Amino acid sequence: MPNLQSVLDEIAHDMASASERGAVARYIPELAKVDPARFGLAVLTEDGTLHTAGDADEPFSIQSVSKVFTLTLALGQVGDILWNRVGREPSGNPFNSIVQLEYEHGIPRNPLINAGALVVTDVLLSGYKPREAIGLILSFMRGLADDDSVFIDEKVARSEEETGFGNRALANYMKAFGNIRHAVEWTTGVYFHQCAIAMSCRQLAVAASFLAGEGKHLLTGNRIVSRERARRINAVMLTCGHYDGSGDFAFRVGIPGKSGVGGGIMAVVPGKASIAVWSPGLNKVGNSLLGSLALERLAKAMDWSIFAP
Amino acid sequence: MPNLQSVLDEIAHDMASASERGAVARYIPELAKVDPARFGLAVLTEDGTLHTAGDADEPFSIQSVSKVFTLTLALGQVGDILWNRVGREPSGNPFNSIVQLEYEHGIPRNPLINAGALVVTDVLLSGYKPREAIGLILSFMRGLADDDSVFIDEKVARSEEETGFGNRALANYMKAFGNIRHAVEWTTGVYFHQCAIAMSCRQLAVAASFLAGEGKHLLTGNRIVSRERARRINAVMLTCGHYDGSGDFAFRVGIPGKSGVGGGIMAVVPGKASIAVWSPGLNKVGNSLLGSLALERLAKAMDWSIFAP
Amino acid sequence: MPNLQSVLDEIAHDMASASERGAVARYIPELAKVDPARFGLAVLTEDGTLHTAGDADEPFSIQSVSKVFTLTLALGQVGDILWNRVGREPSGNPFNSIVQLEYEHGIPRNPLINAGALVVTDVLLSGYKPREAIGLILSFMRGLADDDSVFIDEKVARSEEETGFGNRALANYMKAFGNIRHAVEWTTGVYFHQCAIAMSCRQLAVAASFLAGEGKHLLTGNRIVSRERARRINAVMLTCGHYDGSGDFAFRVGIPGKSGVGGGIMAVVPGKASIAVWSPGLNKVGNSLLGSLALERLAKAMDWSIFAP
Amino acid sequence: MPNLQSVLDEIAHDMASASERGAVARYIPELAKVDPARFGLAVLTEDGTLHTAGDADEPFSIQSVSKVFTLTLALGQVGDILWNRVGREPSGNPFNSIVQLEYEHGIPRNPLINAGALVVTDVLLSGYKPREAIGLILSFMRGLADDDSVFIDEKVARSEEETGFGNRALANYMKAFGNIRHAVEWTTGVYFHQCAIAMSCRQLAVAASFLAGEGKHLLTGNRIVSRERARRINAVMLTCGHYDGSGDFAFRVGIPGKSGVGGGIMAVVPGKASIAVWSPGLNKVGNSLLGSLALERLAKAMDWSIFAP
Repeated sequence: MPNLQSVLDEIAHDMASASERGAVARYIPELAKVDPARFGLAVLTEDGTLHTAGDADEPFSIQSVSKVFTLTLALGQVGDILWNRVGREPSGNPFNSIVQLEYEHGIPRNPLINAGALVVTDVLLSGYKPREAIGLILSFMRGLADDDSVFIDEKVARSEEETGFGNRALANYMKAFGNIRHAVEWTTGVYFHQCAIAMSCRQLAVAASFLAGEGKHLLTGNRIVSRERARRINAVMLTCGHYDGSGDFAFRVGIPGKSGVGGGIMAVVPGKASIAVWSPGLNKVGNSLLGSLALERLAKAMDWSIFAP
Repeated sequence: MPNLQSVLDEIAHDMASASERGAVARYIPELAKVDPARFGLAVLTEDGTLHTAGDADEPFSIQSVSKVFTLTLALGQVGDILWNRVGREPSGNPFNSIVQLEYEHGIPRNPLINAGALVVTDVLLSGYKPREAIGLILSFMRGLADDDSVFIDEKVARSEEETGFGNRALANYMKAFGNIRHAVEWTTGVYFHQCAIAMSCRQLAVAASFLAGEGKHLLTGNRIVSRERARRINAVMLTCGHYDGSGDFAFRVGIPGKSGVGGGIMAVVPGKASIAVWSPGLNKVGNSLLGSLALERLAKAMDWSIFAP
Repeated sequence: MPNLQSVLDEIAHDMASASERGAVARYIPELAKVDPARFGLAVLTEDGTLHTAGDADEPFSIQSVSKVFTLTLALGQVGDILWNRVGREPSGNPFNSIVQLEYEHGIPRNPLINAGALVVTDVLLSGYKPREAIGLILSFMRGLADDDSVFIDEKVARSEEETGFGNRALANYMKAFGNIRHAVEWTTGVYFHQCAIAMSCRQLAVAASFLAGEGKHLLTGNRIVSRERARRINAVMLTCGHYDGSGDFAFRVGIPGKSGVGGGIMAVVPGKASIAVWSPGLNKVGNSLLGSLALERLAKAMDWSIFAP
Repeated sequence: MPNLQSVLDEIAHDMASASERGAVARYIPELAKVDPARFGLAVLTEDGTLHTAGDADEPFSIQSVSKVFTLTLALGQVGDILWNRVGREPSGNPFNSIVQLEYEHGIPRNPLINAGALVVTDVLLSGYKPREAIGLILSFMRGLADDDSVFIDEKVARSEEETGFGNRALANYMKAFGNIRHAVEWTTGVYFHQCAIAMSCRQLAVAASFLAGEGKHLLTGNRIVSRERARRINAVMLTCGHYDGSGDFAFRVGIPGKSGVGGGIMAVVPGKASIAVWSPGLNKVGNSLLGSLALERLAKAMDWSIFAP
């Protein structure tokens, strides 16, 4: 087995000089300002050791990576009846597609595309006012990251509010089918804030560690979810975590993960490690281009795969 | 860890008395004649021991399970350039959908839906006449099953020939885009024969074992494919192996598998075991109803999951 | 040529006793309260004579029939550049479909489906505040109906506001593509009010008469639009006026018309007559069931067809 | 009213020098060889006078224009029960789309798109062998054109046979739903031959004249269909005759017509005239670019429109 730190350093070194870096997301104006040259990588191993490389301490907008955490929270709140309102099949469509909702009468295909995440957020609102729900999510993230400096980037949140018409369309459309229960502005408001959470690779790798630890946090040792739920969340990440590039990610990288348009990807190797990588440029299906490549190299070098013993 | 044989016996016993058994596929007349009460289960473990329960020695039509084996053959023949003609993303559509082909210009989403498997078969025809290709596939299956009694059920093959207009539509449609290179009747003819291969659970579990053994056959010790290719085929099975129920199977069962409308499912636990189950009744997305339940129970009882350490 | 009044009386008499009347629209609660037994019919002939039968003086909610009038207004305001923002092809989809908008990047297929009418309303808002735009539309309708008692049913408008999430979805979705220029609540607000205009068959037949008179109002003699524009609006009505039943209406009835979910249909026989019919029960594609039948009988009896000399 | 011959001459003169002529259909190799500079125009008026301009006597491949004639024949053979197997709604999709067939279970939207025309041809085969059906269609065309020199271009027919995989896909797909009753090769074989009929503008204008004459042929005086059927065929042409450009044609030209990928368009002004135009270059939805423009100019100059008195 190669030395993990050397592997990370080598990857970070090579990625720094990559010329083809993908395109930074432009539809949220605040995100468009991010420097495409940044690259960070962090790995927390089962023994609680953290390895980092590159800009691993710089906070970035986690965007859709947040969908895994709100799913975890909502499952904790209402349990498996959540699955009456959202499916768990890959979508075969872009992240923001509305087509499927028409054919399937307002039930989104899975909780890791925008429509599904809006339903999950709507479930979270059952017991809370929007402000409270945002507070709840933020404190959950701080707890998981074991770091109270995790924050919501209000500029990004406002930018999403100002331009989030596609998400409002999805929410209104599902409300027409009765699958959004609160005011659309409430649900989208909380959603825009959860997407605007800013975290560093270091924080994100730590936060993801309960999914590598069969539900137990690798650093704090706290049980966050049951073993079965951890496995199942990993299954949903593997089949649906990279939008219409999920099959390719499973094929090339071979571990569960979730990407965000901010350029972050969180991934887990069950029983071994949790990982966060960040590179703002995206490939054509909306996942971090260099982030995906870095994970492919890392998994290969460390012989990490869920499809191997 | 519970005793594997006891687990299998208990499952077979319970399944024998299940009242809700799904509906036997009717669109291939020969398949419609199969007795829905049959149930078989076989597991080959890494040490080369075979455990069976129920009708594990009765041959059934493997149908789409054959897609994994022709994919393996075609990758062996032409390598990864195969992926220029077929994708590896879940389809988000029924197994026989033609819609996606129109939007994606004749490139099927993955090799485990009908359209994709037809392309794979078309690739196999590059060096062979139809009769030769059929012979090649059959002898590959006999070798993998370590059993020369594996055969093609000619009645089923003829029944498919007589009713396979949907598959001819797919093949003609892709040929209009240049993605079928041989005469449509050649490609569909070979395809209908590969689907008509008859195998027992015992044979199928043995045949699948190279995917559990990182490319090495668990019984014969022969290397069939490289470690990386075995992992990747498993990845494709996990994301695409159960049509529009692939996400649900990953969620509930947690291991790679491939189903067929004959009621068979083949599955693998990397490093641990290969499995075949057979129950002819299908659920609404076209996968064996009791077969899926049996695998869910088996995986849970044995604590088998690729989403766990 | 039979006597028009006798034809109308006979139709109204038969329709009164029809047992199969279709289903009243339920998705707008106020509309669901309407008595399905009502039936009205009015015809204004080119000589300015008005014939009526049944409940021809009872106001009903014109709903989508309003789309023809706002289209007329918007074309008057901005001219044919309107067609840069909306197509004029039949949709091949239900009236409220959002699927097509995704494939065609926010450009609705025609101005007589909901998405297209929202764009038209958005165009109308260019020079006006919402209140002013509503006032403008109402006074246009009063002028055309030659009757100042035409009014907006505020209960219906409020009912639409409370339940119009599908339309908000469409508007937000098009705004994401830049094809709605004003605040979604402004555009949908005006739209909900135009749909809530209440008119009787008598008023509606009079209002439609400029389309039968090649742009000149049959009663007042005022020119409302040019000859060419009148013809073109009729062409759009013929190909797109009955949602996904437009082809069938052209086939059976043979004249241009526009239906609304309130059960009204307005139709014109160029050079001869304008017609309004009302029966609240709808067929499965959302057009008045008895209204369509009544128009088919009327056109046949009077030998009215645009496909004949 | 301007002089018709002068109008035709002027149009032909201007079209001869048009630089933007569209693209000749390339998917049928024989059609790709046609000279894009050709332009012909013929008008038969109600008094039986024929006016021509340009290459009006040169035969071209009528292609989909034939769909109107086989529809007429099939309605004559089986009557309105034909409509159980094919709809009459505009498709909202390209001429060769297969998507709609999946959603609507093998029932094509209308008889003027490829799928619908294949069903119509299949209906024609009920009482005939393929050779006989082809003979029947050809003699019907010769009778209507009042000219025995109308012929089937065997080179074009063969070219279609060799490349018509898209149409075979449609036919197989509908056969899977039971909506093609004969062998696919029979139905497509007849279809390819009807498409390969070669006619001049002069012949086509004469052949179309029964649709301008409310069912009676303008030249021979023979009744071909009833008045009602003539109107209804015109209605189907208006709503569906130009594929996904039907709405635009109705809007701009305002008369029923049917186009073919050979560059021909046949059109009728009920009670006044039948028209044929030919220019091989197509616009982006597959209709003759200059042919459409010529018809728009002709209709405008002669004040022909079904949307006017």
